[in-house]
Amino acid sequence: MKTVHLIGLGPGDPDDLTGRAIAAINQVDVFFLLDKAGPGKDELIQVRETILRRFATDKPYRLVHAPSPERDRAAADYLGAVEDWRQKKIDLIGRLIAEELEDGQTGGMLLWGDPALYDGTIQILHDLKAAGRDDFQFTVIPGITSLQALTARHRVAMNRVGGRITVTPGRALEKMAPEAVDNVFVMLDTRHAYKHFIGHDLMIYWGAYLGLPDETLIAGPLDQVAGQVEAEFQRLRAAKGWIMDCYLLRRRDG
Amino acid sequence: MKTVHLIGLGPGDPDDLTGRAIAAINQVDVFFLLDKAGPGKDELIQVRETILRRFATDKPYRLVHAPSPERDRAAADYLGAVEDWRQKKIDLIGRLIAEELEDGQTGGMLLWGDPALYDGTIQILHDLKAAGRDDFQFTVIPGITSLQALTARHRVAMNRVGGRITVTPGRALEKMAPEAVDNVFVMLDTRHAYKHFIGHDLMIYWGAYLGLPDETLIAGPLDQVAGQVEAEFQRLRAAKGWIMDCYLLRRRDG
Repeated sequence: MKTVHLIGLGPGDPDDLTGRAIAAINQVDVFFLLDKAGPGKDELIQVRETILRRFATDKPYRLVHAPSPERDRAAADYLGAVEDWRQKKIDLIGRLIAEELEDGQTGGMLLWGDPALYDGTIQILHDLKAAGRDDFQFTVIPGITSLQALTARHRVAMNRVGGRITVTPGRALEKMAPEAVDNVFVMLDTRHAYKHFIGHDLMIYWGAYLGLPDETLIAGPLDQVAGQVEAEFQRLRAAKGWIMDCYLLRRRDG
Repeated sequence: MKTVHLIGLGPGDPDDLTGRAIAAINQVDVFFLLDKAGPGKDELIQVRETILRRFATDKPYRLVHAPSPERDRAAADYLGAVEDWRQKKIDLIGRLIAEELEDGQTGGMLLWGDPALYDGTIQILHDLKAAGRDDFQFTVIPGITSLQALTARHRVAMNRVGGRITVTPGRALEKMAPEAVDNVFVMLDTRHAYKHFIGHDLMIYWGAYLGLPDETLIAGPLDQVAGQVEAEFQRLRAAKGWIMDCYLLRRRDG
């Protein structure tokens, strides 16, 4: 039997790793690094290599880099494009486990944030097993999410007393009615969906590159700072070539 | 100036602490332990003391135990009872910072899960500062939440592809329309609110004492396992005298 650890790294700062993640890293014989093409690639590889140099100290390990399949972001059929991309990832990860791990060995995947939050790898491993692959078992090791880094840095609670929390991709936020946007975390929003909600007395708590050296924070009434958030997003993305951000929209009290 | 660290411990297992939390623990001169009365008290104090024995190794520290104010759970006026309880906590924490910390010292509060998730302490420190207390600054250190332990143990994602996540107290779940219960995490539910949603083709992923030695998991179609969840909840609570649990309700695919 082979073992695969899906290891949550947190948002990027090595200090956010848990002891459980570090212990798992030290059981791994082969790390599978699925590298996304594009401008952020080198920096994100570097962060993972820094983490391994600091924490993978108990035994030798091997790195297997593989280009991560790209999702067709221009496709009109969003779910179809996601499904196509997912199938390519299933094939790739299935091949890595088959070809790069020997029986009895442990593979590791270093995933940003928490493997359970907007990352399809858990489901991919279930799909491989459902398709008959019985040569591996797997574990999931939680990590601090960028949303938790966001609230910690802004020193705000995720919820109000007795209230609900919603987490949504930007794409789904656009479809929400303004009165439903009471306390909503937004991830993966490249289209500035918050601008749909100007004039509804919301606060925004925004952060980019959380846990990384370029971490940037903006907070304030949405009506006043929406322009600043958009300008900062554009400026940072132009300067670095890539951006990862998230934010909280919250109705103001009273 | 004094400093207060709000330190997220994760759900209970010392392995879930992050390096950032351990570093913060080692800066603390005085830990404020707000002990809840009742049957779980001794065990929860023990877990925190185990964590300190293991990690607080850099310098001497002092423990200040204080009984945590109790919320009136029988009050008809829920928000009023919460506000009254919050005011008592503001007074207590304000007094602890004033009386137990000297200028230049660092206080620490060890909080379960993440300080930002259904824990009022962040807001209490803001309220103290808004009321004119300028003798302290504070930081928030994220921790793994019980929801993340739940999804890791059940090896399920928090979201479906492109989909939303809702997190709610049990009290607010009861008021949700069944068709809105698509992918909902429920915390603080002592009234088995999931039973309102039997017959709506939902899955439940349930966990109690996550991260503690008595960790218990149940997963399955809600219609089939709701009775088992309730029976196990009652049995465990009777055996141990207290329980902490949470769960995910998810509409079945297809």
